[in-house]
Amino acid sequence: MTHKVLLLPGDGIGPEIAAQAARLLKACQEAGLDIDVEEGLVGGSAYDVHGEPLPAETLEKAKAASAILLGAVGGPKWDTLEDLSKRPEKGLLGLRKNLGLFGNLRPAMLYPQLASASSLKPELVAGLDIMIVRELTGGIYFGQPRGIEERNGERVGFNTYIYSESEIERIGRVAFEMAQKRGKKLCSVDKANVLEVTILWREVMERLAPEYPDVELSHMYVDNAAMQLVRAPKQFDVVVTGNMFGDILSDAAAMLTGSIGMLPSASLNESGQGMYEPCHGSAPDIAGQNIANPLAMMLSVAMMLRYSLNETAMAERIEAAVGSVLDDGLRTADIASEGTRRVSTDEMGDAVLAAF
Amino acid sequence: MTHKVLLLPGDGIGPEIAAQAARLLKACQEAGLDIDVEEGLVGGSAYDVHGEPLPAETLEKAKAASAILLGAVGGPKWDTLEDLSKRPEKGLLGLRKNLGLFGNLRPAMLYPQLASASSLKPELVAGLDIMIVRELTGGIYFGQPRGIEERNGERVGFNTYIYSESEIERIGRVAFEMAQKRGKKLCSVDKANVLEVTILWREVMERLAPEYPDVELSHMYVDNAAMQLVRAPKQFDVVVTGNMFGDILSDAAAMLTGSIGMLPSASLNESGQGMYEPCHGSAPDIAGQNIANPLAMMLSVAMMLRYSLNETAMAERIEAAVGSVLDDGLRTADIASEGTRRVSTDEMGDAVLAAF
Ligand SMILES: CC(C)[C@H](C(=O)O)[C@@H](O)C(=O)O
Ligand SMILES: CC(C)[C@H](C(=O)O)[C@@H](O)C(=O)O
Repeated sequence: MTHKVLLLPGDGIGPEIAAQAARLLKACQEAGLDIDVEEGLVGGSAYDVHGEPLPAETLEKAKAASAILLGAVGGPKWDTLEDLSKRPEKGLLGLRKNLGLFGNLRPAMLYPQLASASSLKPELVAGLDIMIVRELTGGIYFGQPRGIEERNGERVGFNTYIYSESEIERIGRVAFEMAQKRGKKLCSVDKANVLEVTILWREVMERLAPEYPDVELSHMYVDNAAMQLVRAPKQFDVVVTGNMFGDILSDAAAMLTGSIGMLPSASLNESGQGMYEPCHGSAPDIAGQNIANPLAMMLSVAMMLRYSLNETAMAERIEAAVGSVLDDGLRTADIASEGTRRVSTDEMGDAVLAAF
Repeated sequence: MTHKVLLLPGDGIGPEIAAQAARLLKACQEAGLDIDVEEGLVGGSAYDVHGEPLPAETLEKAKAASAILLGAVGGPKWDTLEDLSKRPEKGLLGLRKNLGLFGNLRPAMLYPQLASASSLKPELVAGLDIMIVRELTGGIYFGQPRGIEERNGERVGFNTYIYSESEIERIGRVAFEMAQKRGKKLCSVDKANVLEVTILWREVMERLAPEYPDVELSHMYVDNAAMQLVRAPKQFDVVVTGNMFGDILSDAAAMLTGSIGMLPSASLNESGQGMYEPCHGSAPDIAGQNIANPLAMMLSVAMMLRYSLNETAMAERIEAAVGSVLDDGLRTADIASEGTRRVSTDEMGDAVLAAF
């Protein structure tokens, strides 16, 4: 059966890195992968054409696809849009919600070749390999009621942080299963000393634990987790948390590696359909200059092959190609260091394809 | 006029470090400071005696005081209390709310003597001096409605993240004024691409900016702020944010220094009344061993002298005493390194008093 892959370049550096992913997908096809690749518009670039960050056409294509590859969305051009529902980010959030992509996997791992890029002391990050499992379709991102309105003669802004038991259980199972496949340690992050919603969160995690006796479950308050990530990140294996805390902690964790331009992510729904994207953003400041790092995007292709298309061997081929390019000393600007060779986005893409 | 100071040792290591603060207060009195020091119970230790983490008697004393010095609250002993309103943390939150202590100042600065304690590379943190201004009596910590209840056949947990314009303006002014006294750069942290409440937050900050033309205002999303703190913390001068984001970011920032046992904090209300406490927690794992670092607590006394009692000279004397003790190579376990002398809580207190 031919898998449909939808490529959504998005905004900023999105199109440049997506172009490298497209070349890689073609190479995979030539190597025997049975996929059909389509493209679509999302984010600011979709708004510019259709007046909507998530046009109906894109959503239809996304629903029909086995997997989606997304570059990045957003940029200053659209930051001043009065109507929040038209902002590029809403295209991304709409895809997550409409496809039910509740399980967000954000690995933070250090490439040994890039150890010096970390702002942390080498001994604290050597061999770092954390998997953050973030709930992606609930919590304060989507909770109702929300808005800005007049109360007692002044405006108030409000959002609702809400989770149901079934939502917590669903993401909890993803995290426990992930821990089983990895180091068998799961740390659930909450703020149960203050927030009722996270008291329920903690309770559900506790309730699930006996079903995964090989996994050691611990709990940590979010403020402490932010500290511990900075202090001693290697204490973590799998971390599970809600949408908002996950947004913050996964970015901090990614930055520990010093090379966020290297990190892919996956967002999965209950039927294994997935959206794959780099952890980094649309970096509008460097867009169009052919200097962005395409590796997170190319590694997102590998993650897609592994999680949605069950093509482990080909995923490993991509990862090995990236590794050998790094071994050869090729670096885009964001990961450049003394004694390495600075290359452009295209050149990095060329090198990975040559090594594939 | 005699200032009333209320000392609330609290739980865990609280009593040990509060004892050192008490000695320091006595030394200040001998040096001519006109204060009257009382003690009170809060947190778990208050619950054990009165069945309440914030007994009425403590609250009355707090209201009558010019300034409050708090050790720390919380511990595993009370973590299993079913009734959240009885938990130690509620004592702290109750003090903040009842006294209207909305302006939380959390400095994250690196002591040059402790530069090697940071997990970051030395060049990234040398001279680090950030002031995080956190809103402390609003936001999701106190928003209504909140709770856990049955909906559609299952339980849901929910909290409300809410701010009014006047609450935002009030903390904004504290932050702008702080920036004026410091490096004149203010970064407001929000998640305005997703949360309506922080769209209002950003709008109010923008509205205030023209009144502080000497301050350069910028905005950053919270996920990016967490990354930037890890990547290049020295880009920040003053940071202003809401209660929850402030909780997370101030702990991450404090940990950048590698010596959270050194950092005091202040929580002020509109009449300048303040509560002063270390940034670290109650550390139940090391309580009662006479090894906790009392310096954050002793520096909280200095911060109190500066912000609530207007005794700048005496505050500086304390800070200088702490500096000279560090110069002499004295270290509690948390900040120990090769070539320094390891001392107990009491011995550190002795040394500061001797240098005062
Ligand atoms: C762009 C934004 C809406 C998004 C989020 O907050 O989820 C991004 O930060 C991310 O983490 O994917
Ligand atoms: C103890 C807890 C309620 C408190 C908070 O979350 O505010 C603490 O983490 C702090 O930052 O002072």
